[in-house]
Amino acid sequence: MSNPPDPELLSLNTATVRDKWKLRQIIEGCSRHGIRGISPWRDKLAEMGAKNAARAIRDHGLTVTGLCRGGMFPAADRNGRQAAIDDNLRAVDDAAVLEARCLVLVAGGLPPGSKDLAGARAMVRDGIGEVLDHARSAGVPLAIEPLHPMYCADRACVNTLAQALDLCDELGEGVGVAVDVYHVWWDPQLSAQIERAGDKRLLAFHICDWLVPTTDLLTDRGMMGDGVIDLPLIRSWMERAGYRGFHEVEIMSSRNWWRRDPEEVLATCRVRYQTAC
Amino acid sequence: MSNPPDPELLSLNTATVRDKWKLRQIIEGCSRHGIRGISPWRDKLAEMGAKNAARAIRDHGLTVTGLCRGGMFPAADRNGRQAAIDDNLRAVDDAAVLEARCLVLVAGGLPPGSKDLAGARAMVRDGIGEVLDHARSAGVPLAIEPLHPMYCADRACVNTLAQALDLCDELGEGVGVAVDVYHVWWDPQLSAQIERAGDKRLLAFHICDWLVPTTDLLTDRGMMGDGVIDLPLIRSWMERAGYRGFHEVEIMSSRNWWRRDPEEVLATCRVRYQTAC
Repeated sequence: MSNPPDPELLSLNTATVRDKWKLRQIIEGCSRHGIRGISPWRDKLAEMGAKNAARAIRDHGLTVTGLCRGGMFPAADRNGRQAAIDDNLRAVDDAAVLEARCLVLVAGGLPPGSKDLAGARAMVRDGIGEVLDHARSAGVPLAIEPLHPMYCADRACVNTLAQALDLCDELGEGVGVAVDVYHVWWDPQLSAQIERAGDKRLLAFHICDWLVPTTDLLTDRGMMGDGVIDLPLIRSWMERAGYRGFHEVEIMSSRNWWRRDPEEVLATCRVRYQTAC
Repeated sequence: MSNPPDPELLSLNTATVRDKWKLRQIIEGCSRHGIRGISPWRDKLAEMGAKNAARAIRDHGLTVTGLCRGGMFPAADRNGRQAAIDDNLRAVDDAAVLEARCLVLVAGGLPPGSKDLAGARAMVRDGIGEVLDHARSAGVPLAIEPLHPMYCADRACVNTLAQALDLCDELGEGVGVAVDVYHVWWDPQLSAQIERAGDKRLLAFHICDWLVPTTDLLTDRGMMGDGVIDLPLIRSWMERAGYRGFHEVEIMSSRNWWRRDPEEVLATCRVRYQTAC
């Protein structure tokens, strides 16, 4: 077992306590629990507006480790694709106001009724390309997050780190990846692809655990240490590649953690970050 | 849309109707519905014994397109690993009696309590290695079936076609792959890896569909045409690589197809094989 990670580098993704707390409570909760990073989803951000949220986050000394999320580029027609691009441009603006370390991009799946996976993947590439100039100008790195292959149809058709890095290669400066252990832990190429990414393109690191059995495809993630992911090993790969950023806890858990008192959830995150990561 | 596939090449995996029919009924049902191939699971085989089953299958003029399944190599200790190898040797014997086109290997997941994915994968390689001489002598090709990454923890730590083919490269003659669209349809490398496999190593082709939404990780597979997989496209890749074997329908579906009259299920398989594959 390696040394525990730097306690200053724990971050909380708002999805982890989204059912019981509003954004302002989450900001205050992170501060109270010594969690120095926060990553809001845009539905939470909408409660306060980006400027008020940015002020509250700054007042509590927190770093915004990412804004979740842009992306969702594939659509059935040109209007739909343009609407997605427009939405991403607004997300870039919000990320800039928050001084977020990155805007996380979840690619999007197949348009309704479509089986054209290659076409959807091309729409993702083209969509990011349409947003990239604005993101560069705004100083907001775009973090493509490969999602687990079980989400390929309906959430994200970018499903491996290799595929995300191929996109980065194609798109150039200003684009990197978000590595979420839940999505990539199974990948035989994981170590090699983290090394390939290198610290410049490793924009975010999300942690949780894979439960056995997993009873729901979307909302049955585990707390670090409760599942089968070798978190210290994956962290060692991230660090070897030069990653020095935050470790962001993102746990969607409708049967367990969403039902608990967020005070307990945050306290558990702190403990497990030191004992299981 | 390409031409429909050869009607003579439809095969039925017994898992598709396992709840309502015994093996003898499935054999007779295939014969009645003009389905020329069958792929029994070993629990069904146990009802009749391999020799009786082989006779009944031969009497009905069916081809055994595969025996499901060997594998499940990782175990917590040496005794467990040896038990798995012994079980695989028996499965090879059964496959030989059935004159099966291949013995399908599902790798197995992490041993209980383990997070050592690389170790589990080494156990799979070593386990296949222990079975391979006997399989070669018996004339039974071993078909490694990469399973969807959502099964990595508890069912199979071989999760992509590339990974399975790397194993084939390492193990040599007598080992190939089973391509099940459900497990691999999402893979950005799928076309390239099917081409890499080539006809000698493409030992089986399993079909069904990925439903949106998918409500259960294990038993919510769809009938061909009811989901998002571009089956004709994947078939075209298989054929381009030289595959001329059967197309085996394997649908685990506790909420739909398992509840229906198997006569209807088989009739539907026939129709969809011609209209959606």
